[in-house]
Amino acid sequence: MPEIRAGEDLAERILEAAKKAGLRFEDGDVVAVAQKIVSKAEGAVIPLGTVKPSEKARGIAGELKKDARAIELVLQESRRILRSERVLITETKHGFVCANAGVDHSNVPGNDMVTLLPRDPDDSAEKLAKELSKRARKRIAVIVSDTFGRPWRLGLTNVAIGASGLPVLLDLRGTRDREGKPLTATVLAVADDLAAAAGLLMGKSEGTPVVIVRGYRYKPASEKAAQIIRPASEDLFR
Amino acid sequence: MPEIRAGEDLAERILEAAKKAGLRFEDGDVVAVAQKIVSKAEGAVIPLGTVKPSEKARGIAGELKKDARAIELVLQESRRILRSERVLITETKHGFVCANAGVDHSNVPGNDMVTLLPRDPDDSAEKLAKELSKRARKRIAVIVSDTFGRPWRLGLTNVAIGASGLPVLLDLRGTRDREGKPLTATVLAVADDLAAAAGLLMGKSEGTPVVIVRGYRYKPASEKAAQIIRPASEDLFR
Repeated sequence: MPEIRAGEDLAERILEAAKKAGLRFEDGDVVAVAQKIVSKAEGAVIPLGTVKPSEKARGIAGELKKDARAIELVLQESRRILRSERVLITETKHGFVCANAGVDHSNVPGNDMVTLLPRDPDDSAEKLAKELSKRARKRIAVIVSDTFGRPWRLGLTNVAIGASGLPVLLDLRGTRDREGKPLTATVLAVADDLAAAAGLLMGKSEGTPVVIVRGYRYKPASEKAAQIIRPASEDLFR
Repeated sequence: MPEIRAGEDLAERILEAAKKAGLRFEDGDVVAVAQKIVSKAEGAVIPLGTVKPSEKARGIAGELKKDARAIELVLQESRRILRSERVLITETKHGFVCANAGVDHSNVPGNDMVTLLPRDPDDSAEKLAKELSKRARKRIAVIVSDTFGRPWRLGLTNVAIGASGLPVLLDLRGTRDREGKPLTATVLAVADDLAAAAGLLMGKSEGTPVVIVRGYRYKPASEKAAQIIRPASEDLFR
């Protein structure tokens, strides 16, 4: 993929890159797209020079030894701060809990430029799925993925922050195991599993921000990745 | 795969099933194996009738409306209780944080039988990798996977609770992004991503407890899935 700039036609760039790689889309393909290029195409790229840090941002930046302008953006993108030790962990306006509210400087041209998360990643996924499906004339589902940390386990894994065209949660409650016993409490976060699978090929610095997952069987569905966000009332860790 | 019983030669059953499916192992294959059949082969199957619940277990069972004998096993398998609302979330003796300490009745023959997690899943993975590699005459890595819930996001995803022969955490710190900027704080939990990818094919009730992941490029390594467990001192959520 070439470097993606604001306003660019992401579907077209993906189709071109696929063609160049000798890949043809097939019905049912799940196209996983790194959040970073979605944000870039949507212009969610901010020069830190344009950001005026609030007093609160300057205070946190002093404690964490970070750039107050970046912290200001994190606060603007957040609904609530969960932790502010070593790193800021916040709940974003979307409801995601992640480091720095997704404000990130990696793989962004220029030293003082950061990307924000797409404003509505499910909407981004839906538009991209529609365009890819139309132009490739195949039924294509899309996942917008990002790497999140998690409590208790080290390392980042890719999760789905946006999705279109496929089930995001596979609810097996009511089905039976191979012994014939009903399965309880078994809802699989398949969109996250798909994002994780794609993440293995994306790496982080390799310029592979798009991965086609082929051969995964699913029933087309109009679910949103926002459905994966655990409602506050069900969150045992508040 | 056939039903696995205590003491069974798991490597042999996997080789037979692969042969039957017309699959030949290749160097670098990552064989993901569901915890359930590892536990069964190792005899970590407990008839609830043999368990005497303690007073504490009876108390919790009353509150949660669960079987006191199963709760007793959860307590025995745990180092600490994190939450006891609707479900018990504990830290197991291994250090995993999960529901019911991995004590599970699904896909176990008999109504009053449960499986525990393998005592040392990294050791289980290592032994299995050694046997598979020896008998197939290929270099085979193994991941023992289980489905865990997580805070903030709904649904279960597969994670690696045991591993042998491959890196579990891919540390990209010090490498550079495509803009030439050094990547910070970028450690990818690739063993968990591999487990998640395999989980998409395992399902939960389909009798597909073994998945071969092929084509993932990695440097053979003698890392353990236990390394993914976040040390208490680094856990922002204690």
